[in-house]
Amino acid sequence: MKLETLAIVGVGLIGGSIGQAARERGVASHVIGIGRRLETLQDARALGAIDSYALDLARGVAGAELVVFATPVHMIARQVLEAAPACRAGTILTDAGSTKVRILQDLSGRLPQAVHFVGSHPLAGSEKRGPQHASAQLFVDRLTIVTPTPATQPEAVAKVTWFWQALGSRVQAMPAADHDRVLAFTSHLPHLVASALAGCLPGGLDPFTAAGFRDTTRVAAGDPALWASILSQNRESILAALDNLSGRLDRFRESLRENDVPRMEELLQEGKKNRDALDR
Amino acid sequence: MKLETLAIVGVGLIGGSIGQAARERGVASHVIGIGRRLETLQDARALGAIDSYALDLARGVAGAELVVFATPVHMIARQVLEAAPACRAGTILTDAGSTKVRILQDLSGRLPQAVHFVGSHPLAGSEKRGPQHASAQLFVDRLTIVTPTPATQPEAVAKVTWFWQALGSRVQAMPAADHDRVLAFTSHLPHLVASALAGCLPGGLDPFTAAGFRDTTRVAAGDPALWASILSQNRESILAALDNLSGRLDRFRESLRENDVPRMEELLQEGKKNRDALDR
Repeated sequence: MKLETLAIVGVGLIGGSIGQAARERGVASHVIGIGRRLETLQDARALGAIDSYALDLARGVAGAELVVFATPVHMIARQVLEAAPACRAGTILTDAGSTKVRILQDLSGRLPQAVHFVGSHPLAGSEKRGPQHASAQLFVDRLTIVTPTPATQPEAVAKVTWFWQALGSRVQAMPAADHDRVLAFTSHLPHLVASALAGCLPGGLDPFTAAGFRDTTRVAAGDPALWASILSQNRESILAALDNLSGRLDRFRESLRENDVPRMEELLQEGKKNRDALDR
Repeated sequence: MKLETLAIVGVGLIGGSIGQAARERGVASHVIGIGRRLETLQDARALGAIDSYALDLARGVAGAELVVFATPVHMIARQVLEAAPACRAGTILTDAGSTKVRILQDLSGRLPQAVHFVGSHPLAGSEKRGPQHASAQLFVDRLTIVTPTPATQPEAVAKVTWFWQALGSRVQAMPAADHDRVLAFTSHLPHLVASALAGCLPGGLDPFTAAGFRDTTRVAAGDPALWASILSQNRESILAALDNLSGRLDRFRESLRENDVPRMEELLQEGKKNRDALDR
């Protein structure tokens, strides 16, 4: 199987990586990039991420079999609704957004019959931005979650599943609500916490940070606008995860106040057990 | 300058790295390792970290010019007090512990006149344990903080400073209380938070973690007993840093409840600004 034309809306780190992987792996005969900034599109072409580009969304998607939206989550539903009427019958639309429920809600019942949207989220990325940080290997051995609804056409799910697998990813389907609850714990809360830790570092202490601080806060270098939009779209699940974390911080606080060393060790042991399991 | 005999009490990752670096760089003619487990001492010798070893603390330190204590922080003062009477006049004692105030308090006025203790903390380490993870390069281009008091002999401070520099480290002196306040923010609180984040990951979500979660929680794999002892020894400063973090988490919580996206972006921008500064 090979796509004739793949369209990628947004050719930053994720969109650029999709393009590079699709071209290197022969997943599509032609890759067109669509964006608002000419310079980024030119960079993406120079970097081998796309074959051609368009500044106009409707024109860019007109000839595509598959369109992937790799733009900030608050823009995806709006762009899908704008692009859909310009698509050929049978075109499949998907995305790479870090939240799913809100996007599906915003699309529900509003798409033309002849096009099919399947939500996707490749669990891959970086705190870096732009096609110059793209990599054809970004999705290899990573997991992509797809979030079909009962109304989603099975052929569209199969094609989107094939697509991410063809880029090197594993694929798992789950309901969008499950996705958002899971990602609140595995990605959105850690981002918020890393940012809060970095944000409360008093001035002048930079020279006294070592690998531990740098690792723990690395993701805080991510783009604030992109992440504010993710936090906002998944705020209920993130608030629930944050309450859970705060409860655990309160237990640490209590053990410190009472100088209860066995309790501290027990709490640390629980964290270690979960963390060690990830490397097994 | 070269030491005749360097004694290292505790030949785990830190003690083993000190030994390897000292031997490779010709900092000492003879390195003796002191520990309670024969197997670890034999491993350390096999790994080139020490030339000889002793299970008895008093016997091990008897011939040393410089003794470094690289044991868990709650053991250091006790071991220093036990070793000191067995040392030759003029022996200098130092440590590699992550807390400083409590150790100095426990030693204050209790050491023989003829030996000199200078607190040290090399800002280098790993979540791993044991001499098999030691590295002669561990201290290269890292910072070691030394914490002399007004009563500390200047020659002892100079010799300890020379020692860490000879292992490849930069050295900065500061009062122990400043050290503990600084490290609460740059190391102890991040450890506690990474552990709490890992600890509150619901069961079954491991497959949905990616690089962000793994980096943010990496240090949570550290040894719970070692870290409980650090948290306990610096609990006042850590509680103050934790209050600061909780305040920032509350501001995030408020912005999520009110869906105040500009406020979220502003908070994330503050974190990014601090994090970006570390890579400059």
